[in-house]
Amino acid sequence: MISKKVKAGVEGGSAIRALFEEGKNLADRYGVENVCDFSIGNPNIAPPAAFKNAIIDILNEEDPVFVNGYMNNAGYEQVRQAVADNLNRRFGTSFGISNIIMCVGAASGLNVIFKTLLNPGDEVIAFAPYFLEYRNYVSNYDGKLVEIPANPPEFLPDIDKFRASVTPATKAVIINNPNNPTGVVYGEDTINAIADVMREKEKEYGTSIYLISDEPYRELVYDSETVVPYLTKHYHNTIVGYSFSKSLSLPGERIGYIVIPSEIDDYQDVFDGAVLCTRISGFVNAPSLVQLAVSRCLDETADIGFYGRNRDMLYNALTEIGFECVKPEGAFYMWVKTPVDEAEFVALCKKHLVLVVAGSGFAGPGYVRLAYCISPDVIEKSIPKFKAIMDEIKHK
Amino acid sequence: MISKKVKAGVEGGSAIRALFEEGKNLADRYGVENVCDFSIGNPNIAPPAAFKNAIIDILNEEDPVFVNGYMNNAGYEQVRQAVADNLNRRFGTSFGISNIIMCVGAASGLNVIFKTLLNPGDEVIAFAPYFLEYRNYVSNYDGKLVEIPANPPEFLPDIDKFRASVTPATKAVIINNPNNPTGVVYGEDTINAIADVMREKEKEYGTSIYLISDEPYRELVYDSETVVPYLTKHYHNTIVGYSFSKSLSLPGERIGYIVIPSEIDDYQDVFDGAVLCTRISGFVNAPSLVQLAVSRCLDETADIGFYGRNRDMLYNALTEIGFECVKPEGAFYMWVKTPVDEAEFVALCKKHLVLVVAGSGFAGPGYVRLAYCISPDVIEKSIPKFKAIMDEIKHK
Repeated sequence: MISKKVKAGVEGGSAIRALFEEGKNLADRYGVENVCDFSIGNPNIAPPAAFKNAIIDILNEEDPVFVNGYMNNAGYEQVRQAVADNLNRRFGTSFGISNIIMCVGAASGLNVIFKTLLNPGDEVIAFAPYFLEYRNYVSNYDGKLVEIPANPPEFLPDIDKFRASVTPATKAVIINNPNNPTGVVYGEDTINAIADVMREKEKEYGTSIYLISDEPYRELVYDSETVVPYLTKHYHNTIVGYSFSKSLSLPGERIGYIVIPSEIDDYQDVFDGAVLCTRISGFVNAPSLVQLAVSRCLDETADIGFYGRNRDMLYNALTEIGFECVKPEGAFYMWVKTPVDEAEFVALCKKHLVLVVAGSGFAGPGYVRLAYCISPDVIEKSIPKFKAIMDEIKHK
Repeated sequence: MISKKVKAGVEGGSAIRALFEEGKNLADRYGVENVCDFSIGNPNIAPPAAFKNAIIDILNEEDPVFVNGYMNNAGYEQVRQAVADNLNRRFGTSFGISNIIMCVGAASGLNVIFKTLLNPGDEVIAFAPYFLEYRNYVSNYDGKLVEIPANPPEFLPDIDKFRASVTPATKAVIINNPNNPTGVVYGEDTINAIADVMREKEKEYGTSIYLISDEPYRELVYDSETVVPYLTKHYHNTIVGYSFSKSLSLPGERIGYIVIPSEIDDYQDVFDGAVLCTRISGFVNAPSLVQLAVSRCLDETADIGFYGRNRDMLYNALTEIGFECVKPEGAFYMWVKTPVDEAEFVALCKKHLVLVVAGSGFAGPGYVRLAYCISPDVIEKSIPKFKAIMDEIKHK
């Protein structure tokens, strides 16, 4: 009776969300202290105090009709200006308010971009493994997601396979840097190699191919030498989607922005289209009070070092036990090769009250994703469990 | 290059939003004090103090990881329970948390409902004049909006034409009560007449036809005898979309909820589908802090009497000048017959620095909509302007 597409989606379910619910059930049954839940990227650290202070100051100082009211669908002009100034200062760009659209979290921003760009049948290339929602976001507008493998052990895109997969129907390429689920950061060389292929193919086909940079983890890098390139400087047709969910630890607030540089092909259509899509898709505008609050916290972050310490503890423990992991340079996910069949491994972990997400859900079979944005106590408690899991595998 | 559908939308533009921008331009040119802008439904009154207090209390009392964090895509369980309890107390219903999904404003709720229900080609019936975004929301999912006229002077649905227009492809009927743009309230008789036709046609075709009740103006009624029926009690396949934008004067915050009663056909598919669509459309969840805040303000409203006083002042003045208006029972819009051609009248108003929206944008040609959710000073200042407009019409 309902939409056939939605019915299929309901039946397919979301592996991660199902685990999220299952984690709560296991916690109820065995006690929350006995379950080690690595399933969902729900930041477990508080926002910086500046965020709370900004909210309270705004409520006390500003006119509530302004603070809680409608504004341009693209967002408050002063917020967009503040975001543009902040980016220009950090990355040497030259954005203005007509390059920034505030959005209801990165998920909304990506939907707005895809709705703006895609005609039915248009292809969007993603490098596997990738955030599994991309498939839904592209499908929402009847686009076709094309997967290019990223090769182990570095999980950087296979440039030759990428080149061979770009067609005249390729409307966009999406990258997620730092990457969910692998934690890998694409450096300048990788970005330039991707951009070279895109320029070459644009010329060959006479098309515009947009590079969509999904950057919710931009600030989450752990080593001083790791630099996440700002892609608008590397490729002319780049659109950036950003979220404050991770940097300010505000995932429930749904706040982010899109950057649409003036130099992209059909800039005015893309910008106007994205504003229109923000409205007609039902977002209307990014939540007003939180827009104003984040604009006062653009140089703040939550305690990112927390994730770095978690990464080190988990990575060191798992590799010592004998697991093969990609050492994450950014984000808060560990990508672990399963020593046995993936589904068997996930079930075995669950038996030991450890929740991990199967890599197949990210188009990366043979691996699992561990979200380590959790309490260090849970990681500590998981170590003997992972040891027991490995023992059970070795002695079966 | 961009989506053909979006490109067409960009070229069509939004009459209301264009006027919104035009109003700002006129204000810059002639001084904000000289422009009377009746174009957009942007509440001009503050939220109740309870809202600000709730936000500050929550920030001071609750764990920020909970307050700003992810929750079930349907919303916090305690918020959904509070909403259900509030509805049950007010309307004698018996909803629980599995009947409530928190959403990013009514626009998001309606998109989620349409995405959940519609297969391409499915028909959705709306009674003209109607909120013009319905056309976009239905088109987003390749549905077809079917308009049924509402007859002057009462602007209640033409039930015979409605009956003749329901087909086996009719998936839903949407009503907006109190109505934007007419301010009319459909009472029990009207609702029962609509429901009778729907029951009859469900039986005749063996289909499920959902009644979607879009209720952002529910609390905005001005006469003690005006009752807005709660539709789940009148028709078994009702789904309600609600927003706090007007009742709490929070239009920028994007917060509302959907009610999916357990007795509707395919309840579980509809509920699970709506939760899925909340996620994959990019809403993910209603903004978290504001969810918690509104759940503490469910019995509060902004100063609704403000709109009642505006209604009386504007209605009395316009009818005295000789305009033919529908006396609004609810919402904050006045629906005024244009004494001359509609486009000519809109232009004439603009010449006098009065901004009104052409009725054609609401599928109601020959009328204009005046949003009177504005400062009483502006209404007062508009009266001599409307007199001058009428004089100019009479003496041309």
